[in-house]
Amino acid sequence: MENLIRGEILRNEYKIFEIGMFKKEGENSYLEIYDEFLDGIDGLTKNSKILIFLWFNRSDEEGKRKTLMVHPRGNVKNPIRGVFSTRSPMRPNPIALYTVNIEKILGNRIYIEEIDAFSETPLIDIKNYSKELDF
Amino acid sequence: MENLIRGEILRNEYKIFEIGMFKKEGENSYLEIYDEFLDGIDGLTKNSKILIFLWFNRSDEEGKRKTLMVHPRGNVKNPIRGVFSTRSPMRPNPIALYTVNIEKILGNRIYIEEIDAFSETPLIDIKNYSKELDF
Repeated sequence: MENLIRGEILRNEYKIFEIGMFKKEGENSYLEIYDEFLDGIDGLTKNSKILIFLWFNRSDEEGKRKTLMVHPRGNVKNPIRGVFSTRSPMRPNPIALYTVNIEKILGNRIYIEEIDAFSETPLIDIKNYSKELDF
Repeated sequence: MENLIRGEILRNEYKIFEIGMFKKEGENSYLEIYDEFLDGIDGLTKNSKILIFLWFNRSDEEGKRKTLMVHPRGNVKNPIRGVFSTRSPMRPNPIALYTVNIEKILGNRIYIEEIDAFSETPLIDIKNYSKELDF
């Protein structure tokens, strides 16, 4: 898909799918993987580190996606600066990244340590953590 | 947008935009930020580390996005396993992540060290690297 402005291609758009969901239940935090993507978690093991990519759907609205300057951590005492120099959930593409340990895997659930995301946040990718790549 | 299968909501889809492009020119590798997103890079500085999120558009096709098991690094000697336990570009959402140093910033170009991406790969996000978050 392409957006044309003044006859020029300004930017392209792409489609991402949920592969599952981040959920909290009492003390537990886990990734629930949808059945159709379950083969993809083969090879993930307890006590290993992964990168998880969430889609901050509460920030998926036009105004928030157009926000380019923010006060880091939402605190007006922090001087305003560009979203790309922060981890703000308000950004053109509300992708969130967490590095976490796998506590256990039970069926389609990958239990992880607690993170500051809301329950039922869409999960869009998981990658193995690599000390060489993610220093 | 929702996909309905047998009357159930199976998964949701979301839209991502390019905010720029990764480019190689001779010895140089840089991120070219589109004008409309340029305010977002305020606060990024030379010699600091950032996470860059690319969209591997060459893997953005149905067959590759349905691939859930791969031989890591494309080498058949590596036992096949789930894409989410690898960094394969073939995965449901072909997001690539790199941790890089900023060498210099000139106008809308952020010069970075060399990475193994093709020139003209879409850029979808930049975040500041955090030793606490990205251990």
